[in-house]
Amino acid sequence: MREVPVSLGERSYPIQVGSGLLAGNEALARLAAGRMVAIVTDSNVAALHARTVADTLRPHAAALHEVVLPAGESNKTWETLNRIFDALLEARFDRDALLVAVGGGVVGDMAGFAAAVYQRGIEFVQVPTTLLAQVDSSVGGKTGINHPLGKNMIGAFHQPRLVLIDVDTLATLPDRELSAGLAEVIKHGAIADAGYFDAVAAALPALRAKDPAALAAAVARSCEIKASVVERDEREGGVRAILNFGHTFGHAIEAGLGYGEWLHGEAVGAGMVMAADLSRRLGLVDAAIAARLREAVAAAGLPVRGPGWPASRYVELMSVDKKARQGTPRFVLLDGLGAARVQRVDDAPLAETLAACSG
Amino acid sequence: MREVPVSLGERSYPIQVGSGLLAGNEALARLAAGRMVAIVTDSNVAALHARTVADTLRPHAAALHEVVLPAGESNKTWETLNRIFDALLEARFDRDALLVAVGGGVVGDMAGFAAAVYQRGIEFVQVPTTLLAQVDSSVGGKTGINHPLGKNMIGAFHQPRLVLIDVDTLATLPDRELSAGLAEVIKHGAIADAGYFDAVAAALPALRAKDPAALAAAVARSCEIKASVVERDEREGGVRAILNFGHTFGHAIEAGLGYGEWLHGEAVGAGMVMAADLSRRLGLVDAAIAARLREAVAAAGLPVRGPGWPASRYVELMSVDKKARQGTPRFVLLDGLGAARVQRVDDAPLAETLAACSG
Repeated sequence: MREVPVSLGERSYPIQVGSGLLAGNEALARLAAGRMVAIVTDSNVAALHARTVADTLRPHAAALHEVVLPAGESNKTWETLNRIFDALLEARFDRDALLVAVGGGVVGDMAGFAAAVYQRGIEFVQVPTTLLAQVDSSVGGKTGINHPLGKNMIGAFHQPRLVLIDVDTLATLPDRELSAGLAEVIKHGAIADAGYFDAVAAALPALRAKDPAALAAAVARSCEIKASVVERDEREGGVRAILNFGHTFGHAIEAGLGYGEWLHGEAVGAGMVMAADLSRRLGLVDAAIAARLREAVAAAGLPVRGPGWPASRYVELMSVDKKARQGTPRFVLLDGLGAARVQRVDDAPLAETLAACSG
Repeated sequence: MREVPVSLGERSYPIQVGSGLLAGNEALARLAAGRMVAIVTDSNVAALHARTVADTLRPHAAALHEVVLPAGESNKTWETLNRIFDALLEARFDRDALLVAVGGGVVGDMAGFAAAVYQRGIEFVQVPTTLLAQVDSSVGGKTGINHPLGKNMIGAFHQPRLVLIDVDTLATLPDRELSAGLAEVIKHGAIADAGYFDAVAAALPALRAKDPAALAAAVARSCEIKASVVERDEREGGVRAILNFGHTFGHAIEAGLGYGEWLHGEAVGAGMVMAADLSRRLGLVDAAIAARLREAVAAAGLPVRGPGWPASRYVELMSVDKKARQGTPRFVLLDGLGAARVQRVDDAPLAETLAACSG
């Protein structure tokens, strides 16, 4: 088991990464001791990993409840969130209660947001069971729900007390979702560590074959990179924005197709290819680096082109993205391999990238 | 104009208290300069004070929108909150946008919560126009909405950047609402400053007659007391709980009658009489102090008795209150006049108080 610390002052917490981590986990048992605890999970995960977590919690918690949400991004709504509030209030959960999110990014984002605002904030634990959630959404404290006019538009920064990542949970993950998670793994290398990018590119066959050692190594290093960025900018006032590499394009794709049509990681995969292409047009990276990124995205089993919309449709969709300032989207660009920068971009190179990388 | 500082590190802000403060307010104009701004108000206040605030903002804001919510506690719901999100997203408000809440506690709580969670947090300003909001809800950063199973169960701590209190807005306030606000003014004296309690008790006729000097003095001193408590305990982990004097009983009354039947301050008025009676039974204050509190509540035009429910009904209603821990309600009690403590209470004296102070 490896432990990655996230250092955020009084909001610091550890991320444990390993195999067979959930059964009898001592950190989780200690945190739950004597408290009212609710496991929040979804209909896909309830019978699998949530049961293991429940067995770990049961001897220690003062009371143990389970809230099973309908699975899927299309349920990341206020109505579904409200099921958590209903359950907590019916069971008379107080401010000392603990939520434990067991599932993918949707469950983690919703349970985290429920914890952020239930009685103005209670503690929670993340037990991510998809690769995407393990390397991205479970680390850093971003929580929230979607609004019909935009993804994650309603939310809060609320740090978990503990993150437990058991790569064994990936054994049951569909291949398509595994690939989607690899988009964020590739991203971490691209924006922060060229050596890691090369290692990931070389390990893609092993990662796609769910080799436990390869997965644990990648998840741990990705969490380290994400944690170090979050530590420097907890509330996304500056450098944290580089974690959105590929996401301005990706969110436009997701919003334009309707949430759930493409997986988030698939949209980010194509979005990273677009962002690298744009970086090349602006002279920030050479063509070889843009090509290596595109090849890694393809080798991860992800799309390398966006939907065939006119550029104006992409621009329209991007202008409502919450990283936009005063309606002008800013882009995370590669600044060489292993580094990133955020800047506004002229219409002309953007239109060229959209024409070259979509359809 | 008096300025009360609220010192919370990087979340510090000033409270301005005075007469004729809203027209051309410089602090508000500076804060709004060049930003997208939305005034959030309700159908009672839109044509009155919100117009003055809009006139102040218009020359400075990059864009100015107005969101008019239906008035009343019964509208403090997710559905009404969502109207704010809809308006902000339709107008493409980004993270640099500013909300300005103009209205009573319901508007302030909802606009503040909208600011807390819109795109994971934007800045906001409180312009409270009821006495209750001026001395209580606009100061301290508590925001939120109600849930069918409990008041303010969904919310966040989110500090405003500026609070503007113009006592002239009280000229249009119905007498019943003025009295409700006086409950909190009396509370501040009772829990923190015996001299202020006496001054308020003596000034009640002038306050009820809306004497501007008396109002400004009371509002400013109440804000000082509340600010000093909040500074010591921003997120209600300890001493801040004393601000809930009268509220455990009061919330039970509000929940049992259905929100909006009694005004919050009316329920707190009766609740404070109950809490003082309980303090007396526990030997923490003598009968004279409990009587002085009851007389002040009566002189403010507030009820001194709760609804005639059996004690078991009160206990049931109190056990879901969010200040309850593990289902056991804790009570804020007077510890002499001008001081307070929080503790659990045995069933017997509680039942005696409920029998003596209700029906």
